[in-house]
Amino acid sequence: MPNDLLIQNVRPMGGPAADVLIRNGLIDRIGPDLTATVAGIETIEGDNCLLIPGFVEGHIHLDKTLLGLPWASRLESPSIREKIDNEKILRRGMQVSVEEQAGKLIRLGISQGTSHIRSHVDIDPDLGLSHLEGVMAAREHCKDAVSIQLVAFPQSGVMRLPGTAELIEEAVKAGADLVGGIDPAGIDGDAVGQLNATFAIAERHGVGLDIHLHDPGVLGLYQIGLIAERTRAHGFAGKVAISHAHCLGMIDDAQVGHAVELLAESGISVMTIGAAYRPSLPLKALRDAGVLTFSGSDDVRDAWQPFGNADMLERAMLVAYQCAFTTDEGLELTFAMATRGGARAMGLEGYGLEAGCAADMVLLDGETLAEIVVARPPRKVVVKSGRVVARDGELVV
Amino acid sequence: MPNDLLIQNVRPMGGPAADVLIRNGLIDRIGPDLTATVAGIETIEGDNCLLIPGFVEGHIHLDKTLLGLPWASRLESPSIREKIDNEKILRRGMQVSVEEQAGKLIRLGISQGTSHIRSHVDIDPDLGLSHLEGVMAAREHCKDAVSIQLVAFPQSGVMRLPGTAELIEEAVKAGADLVGGIDPAGIDGDAVGQLNATFAIAERHGVGLDIHLHDPGVLGLYQIGLIAERTRAHGFAGKVAISHAHCLGMIDDAQVGHAVELLAESGISVMTIGAAYRPSLPLKALRDAGVLTFSGSDDVRDAWQPFGNADMLERAMLVAYQCAFTTDEGLELTFAMATRGGARAMGLEGYGLEAGCAADMVLLDGETLAEIVVARPPRKVVVKSGRVVARDGELVV
Repeated sequence: MPNDLLIQNVRPMGGPAADVLIRNGLIDRIGPDLTATVAGIETIEGDNCLLIPGFVEGHIHLDKTLLGLPWASRLESPSIREKIDNEKILRRGMQVSVEEQAGKLIRLGISQGTSHIRSHVDIDPDLGLSHLEGVMAAREHCKDAVSIQLVAFPQSGVMRLPGTAELIEEAVKAGADLVGGIDPAGIDGDAVGQLNATFAIAERHGVGLDIHLHDPGVLGLYQIGLIAERTRAHGFAGKVAISHAHCLGMIDDAQVGHAVELLAESGISVMTIGAAYRPSLPLKALRDAGVLTFSGSDDVRDAWQPFGNADMLERAMLVAYQCAFTTDEGLELTFAMATRGGARAMGLEGYGLEAGCAADMVLLDGETLAEIVVARPPRKVVVKSGRVVARDGELVV
Repeated sequence: MPNDLLIQNVRPMGGPAADVLIRNGLIDRIGPDLTATVAGIETIEGDNCLLIPGFVEGHIHLDKTLLGLPWASRLESPSIREKIDNEKILRRGMQVSVEEQAGKLIRLGISQGTSHIRSHVDIDPDLGLSHLEGVMAAREHCKDAVSIQLVAFPQSGVMRLPGTAELIEEAVKAGADLVGGIDPAGIDGDAVGQLNATFAIAERHGVGLDIHLHDPGVLGLYQIGLIAERTRAHGFAGKVAISHAHCLGMIDDAQVGHAVELLAESGISVMTIGAAYRPSLPLKALRDAGVLTFSGSDDVRDAWQPFGNADMLERAMLVAYQCAFTTDEGLELTFAMATRGGARAMGLEGYGLEAGCAADMVLLDGETLAEIVVARPPRKVVVKSGRVVARDGELVV
């Protein structure tokens, strides 16, 4: 009986203890004392653990990580442009297999309970589709343990590097799930040009967009307006995400109100990593207006950032810490962003701990959802589609 | 031979492999192949681990932690005043032994490599010296594994609660090592009054001061001026610390220059926790001007903050992350703040990895100091005064 499993004595979302019956990789039933009702099925004793759905890594760069390689000292890079250039310099001196590196980072995520990943992958005239091919190969190897969406990401800009738009389109044809973007004004200098180009590609191929927007203050706000306008015009509500959106933490309350309204009306979701070096985003205002928020690890031990460990529970802590969320309500919000928020942003079907959902789940010691965000306990068991894929931080497949 | 120990094959501060000979709790020699030169001594195989001095926890509240107690939902507390009041409300409903709780948190720190702690301890007319007595009892229990300085901390203010100044003086007589303070303007409303009172107590008893300063912007800057003035007048250079000093991240460059000059001239050190919900401090400007900086865990799982785990290596990461320090130089700066910066601020003698220093040290897997800040590897062995006190995160005493 592949992908059949009985998990005894766990507390779904911190509620009362129950058993969970999994059939064909889906949650069949959750209830008390299911043991008597089934026989001959693989059984896990849950030891009164907390049971949560698998984490959703909403924003990572699988192709960039230097994880497990000899320590590489990062170069001083005050601006985004310099970071882009310095990444090229740092990587040029190293022998890096994108496929191998992406594999390491995917496995690290799985071992910590990640069931779904959205990764941006660099596309530019220098790299061509080589990074995409490497990450797609790594995705194929791990497909039974994690599902992965890939964003064709023009790290170095679109308009300033002729041929990039065509490469993005090639990437989508080759298997990328979404079209990316980066600071249409700050990096490309032609906000309308980049957005028109990327929305047109997305339209032609029926895929969504996930756009990096680091640009600060009103420059960022201006571009939220442009993105919202195009999202509505293309009927893309629910298919567009803005990643980072640092500007939302840098503008006045009236401007925040305007931005939140634009995002809500046009159905754009917002991703934050809880970047402690930038002002926090108005996450509660976004939630209250119905704007979907989610989170991700972003750069993990790469040329951009030495930080990061692909632990989405630590990410929930970092987002909460940046927002000074000390109440259960705030901690539960950042937990939701690392789980169902990401699932909704990625358009995943059957995500959650209800009957009929995919049996993607994590067992860990803890009292409440708020407590595990701050305590970040080890992941005892990670289940994907009804199969145990990791135990005590080690992969078992 | 108590407190004699030979550690073979470690890399002090990430340098070349060496052996470390410890005699009577002090580092006797560090060099290659010391094995042949000694016999009959307890020996540890270091497995090419990185060797670093024990961490210095420069700012914690041992008396406040709710660690290990049933999860307590925090109350919404937008202001410092409300936090103070809500802590009283939350704790009133719980049975909390300060001695037991402080002991838990001290042991958690030791298990993660902390050798020295500076803890603030609440003193007010309601509590009297009860928290101090509890923490002093816990300190006594753990004295072979960690050294602890206590600050008599007027959490609820000095001037606004008559009798508090007298209690601080009682606390110093009873064993507190330093006089504390809190937002002389923002909490007490009488900046000069509080500072005159606390400096006078410190002067009478020949102890230093460590003052909480959360007050923002120019209100904080004003008080840095008052503290600097009194530090010089009392000849207290090297004996005064300002904790948090959020204002340094909130003022313009010219004001920062003025503040840094004041701090440098008067010999005041600055403690930060890398609070992600506030702008970062100008740590490199402080360093360049010769101002000593250090770090601490602050509130650990208490009524103020649900966050925290007394891991000073994680704290170094959080401080670096808040400052967007991605180069080795920046990561090494926050490592130094969590080690010798704190040691100097606490006035510790014989701190470090040189011959003659106290044998307080940590072995952990890692390539460089910068790498361990981001990777935060488990602490394999923790040594205090030449004795192994923890292995793999578990106390052995």
